[in-house]
Amino acid sequence: MAAPIEFLQFVDDNADAFIQRLSDAVAIPSISGDASHRGDVVKMAEWLNDHLKAVGVETQLVDLGKHVMDGEELNLPPAILGRIGNDPKKKTVLVYGHFDVQPANKSDGWDTDPFTLTIHEDGRLIGRGSSDDKGPVLGWLNILQYHFQSNKELPVNLRCCFEGMEESGSEGLDDLVKKESQPGGWFDGVDCVCISDNYWLNTRTPALTYGLRGLAYFKLTVSGPGRDLHSGVFGRTVHEPMTDLVTLMSKLVDGQGNILVPGIDEMVEPPTESEKAIYERLDYSIADVEQSAGGQIAISSNKVDVLMGRMRYASLSLHGIEGAFSGVGAKTVIPAKVAGKFSIRLVPPQTPELVEPLVKAYLEAEFAKLNSKNKFSIESLHGGKPWLADVNHWNFEAAKAATRAVYHQEPDLTREGGSIPVTLTFAESLGVNVLLLPMGRGDDGAHSTNEKLDRSNFIEGTKLLGTYLYEVAVIQ
Amino acid sequence: MAAPIEFLQFVDDNADAFIQRLSDAVAIPSISGDASHRGDVVKMAEWLNDHLKAVGVETQLVDLGKHVMDGEELNLPPAILGRIGNDPKKKTVLVYGHFDVQPANKSDGWDTDPFTLTIHEDGRLIGRGSSDDKGPVLGWLNILQYHFQSNKELPVNLRCCFEGMEESGSEGLDDLVKKESQPGGWFDGVDCVCISDNYWLNTRTPALTYGLRGLAYFKLTVSGPGRDLHSGVFGRTVHEPMTDLVTLMSKLVDGQGNILVPGIDEMVEPPTESEKAIYERLDYSIADVEQSAGGQIAISSNKVDVLMGRMRYASLSLHGIEGAFSGVGAKTVIPAKVAGKFSIRLVPPQTPELVEPLVKAYLEAEFAKLNSKNKFSIESLHGGKPWLADVNHWNFEAAKAATRAVYHQEPDLTREGGSIPVTLTFAESLGVNVLLLPMGRGDDGAHSTNEKLDRSNFIEGTKLLGTYLYEVAVIQ
Ligand SMILES: [Zn+2]
Ligand SMILES: [Zn+2]
Ligand SMILES: [Zn+2]
Ligand SMILES: [Zn+2]
Repeated sequence: MAAPIEFLQFVDDNADAFIQRLSDAVAIPSISGDASHRGDVVKMAEWLNDHLKAVGVETQLVDLGKHVMDGEELNLPPAILGRIGNDPKKKTVLVYGHFDVQPANKSDGWDTDPFTLTIHEDGRLIGRGSSDDKGPVLGWLNILQYHFQSNKELPVNLRCCFEGMEESGSEGLDDLVKKESQPGGWFDGVDCVCISDNYWLNTRTPALTYGLRGLAYFKLTVSGPGRDLHSGVFGRTVHEPMTDLVTLMSKLVDGQGNILVPGIDEMVEPPTESEKAIYERLDYSIADVEQSAGGQIAISSNKVDVLMGRMRYASLSLHGIEGAFSGVGAKTVIPAKVAGKFSIRLVPPQTPELVEPLVKAYLEAEFAKLNSKNKFSIESLHGGKPWLADVNHWNFEAAKAATRAVYHQEPDLTREGGSIPVTLTFAESLGVNVLLLPMGRGDDGAHSTNEKLDRSNFIEGTKLLGTYLYEVAVIQ
Repeated sequence: MAAPIEFLQFVDDNADAFIQRLSDAVAIPSISGDASHRGDVVKMAEWLNDHLKAVGVETQLVDLGKHVMDGEELNLPPAILGRIGNDPKKKTVLVYGHFDVQPANKSDGWDTDPFTLTIHEDGRLIGRGSSDDKGPVLGWLNILQYHFQSNKELPVNLRCCFEGMEESGSEGLDDLVKKESQPGGWFDGVDCVCISDNYWLNTRTPALTYGLRGLAYFKLTVSGPGRDLHSGVFGRTVHEPMTDLVTLMSKLVDGQGNILVPGIDEMVEPPTESEKAIYERLDYSIADVEQSAGGQIAISSNKVDVLMGRMRYASLSLHGIEGAFSGVGAKTVIPAKVAGKFSIRLVPPQTPELVEPLVKAYLEAEFAKLNSKNKFSIESLHGGKPWLADVNHWNFEAAKAATRAVYHQEPDLTREGGSIPVTLTFAESLGVNVLLLPMGRGDDGAHSTNEKLDRSNFIEGTKLLGTYLYEVAVIQ
């Protein structure tokens, strides 16, 4: 079922008002990671709660308790639960978004004040949170406003979950989602989830995202001397921790990205021809990856290999070394205790539980080969499972139909190389299909300077999210 | 010729006064590396100059000009040149020492105020500079005081060179030494040099030092992306600089200390049996090296191998990485530009000029093997030649005879693993034998907290330096 033409017209007619409302939201610097802005996150919660109530949503501000940040105990900002419609004949859709933002200072390199939405003549709406994630959250609000003002019922029952701690680890949300997924909870009866909090692969093609990589983060420590030593006095007399550590770190991944820990790459099934075809079809080029990396350093000249490297293979990155000399200049120290940091981005069927023992056993065996008298330890700092959804589920089919209707193109079917942990929480707590339906483009610069959402993405994206609800309503 | 019994008696009789004078010197916090103490270094120069003049030395305070430290232009403290005796029938000995000290704060972990010489009941004279290098400098003063007070001529012509910037790179000294080594200069006619500014190998056995290692310090840079990347988005899509850098660093040295750069270890002749015997004789054990390293990590259980590793072989140490993640915690960054720091301690016939091309060619070839699209560069940050003296020269024979006379033992013949650059300057400018004749013990803690000089080392060390002059006077 196509969305009513009146809805599409309403969105176009109210575009300037929608942008003004986005400007009001951006003006509240709801930075969850900065204790001094905690009051602004709460203010943003109240602002959003008031706007939801004004368009007929039954809401609840949920107190998530306290937490400690930078040594200070703070009240967590409330989450907002919302509910509209309870018709047993309709499907029930849960939408998620977040109203907190990353830090931003003009002095970081912004061309304009980050908390003043600046409308560029090329259509960019520039401001912190414009794309991540106030634009998408306000997209849902725009849709609700149409139905409220024209006194129309939504085609589905809608449930909302908006949080104010996403940029700071979604503190408190997991427990809330699990609790509200129980019978009688706010999310009881939800048939599918839609999260609009990521980006198109490029700047041209709408995307549906069906996979996220997981993570296993390791700290590999080698120690020996009682204190840092002078290389003049001790060079070639003792086992140097850095020598051992660098040797071990060199055995983790090769220059072509292959993971050298036995059993990890082997866990992943090779792609079928039809799966390779998905990557072939993606509107992306080697030039795109090199432009976004800022260097001509793509690991392959084959587009499918590069895309699969990001989306459907595990990757291992060496992040750095703690405890070694890291300053500028020349210092002739033999560091006493050094810790290498590295992590593996996981894809199904890998999990931290499966991967960690392989990494530990391998490094222990490699360390034993060194015949070093230093001490060795390996610990897991944190981990998260990968997520993969069925792209043929009606939830995705509805989003594909909506994309065709609004954008007149087939969406790219993408997997993200990073993590959005709440995705897995919804998938596991509710046991339903979760769809990532991005509003913004790949160059929006979320978390960076000059974050923007293109006006057309905001307006057409509002149409897309609304049309998606209509498609969900009728799809089998 | 043994030193006069009256001299030895004078030293014993005046021990408390000598210690009081050392206490006065330690009380002047002549920290050359701290701009706010520059006045104290000048004060210390004037204090020493006055004391030298008071015992009949003709002196000159030499203005060494200005330098910039921590962005501030400062006057360098003056060097002190001294001269006593000009008898063509006598040998002429140049002695060197420094009157500046390392920084020290009680809060660094000192048990007592670092600039108040504290006399411990076990005989330790605790205070910054007690051993490095005010004790030895005052040892020469003690000797001169005896000759002045008893109206005796020194057995040699003496030249002094005392500086106040040793702990800060001996700024200005090289030019002064070269200038004064010319005909008509203060050092014209010098027959040998004696530097008392290092330490015994252990706490039991006097030592003569005849070698120092040189240094070649390298910075190996790999870069690729235009900025730091997120491993979720870019992991396995681009050549990661850290992967390349760690691979290259792992190819420099193995866990047993062997340098893997072809041609470097090979430059060094294997030790002869008689040379090995020198190391066998040294009063040192694996336990000594492990105690001073603070860990049971000696690279071999063979004492000769460990000592040769420090003294007569080159060593390669990996110091750290600039530009990578070096903090605590977990950060999933792909650093855009990383620079590995490592250095090679050199022994004859190695020089920076010989070693640097080998390192660069090897790393360039290894980088080429990686088939990486990243950028690679290798630069030399600084270097210095190794130094080795003839232990059978009369200068060393005189010191051996003096050691037997004062300590009733054969000295350890040692080479140091580090550098004392001024040694090479004297050797090359004057073309004469240079002897390192330490006063303090291996556990004095120069540059560390609770620096000390044992009372017996100060008093017997004064006798040693004096007796050395008498032995030099007669030896053929
Ligand atoms: Zn977000
Ligand atoms: Zn974000
Ligand atoms: Zn010194
Ligand atoms: Zn020193």
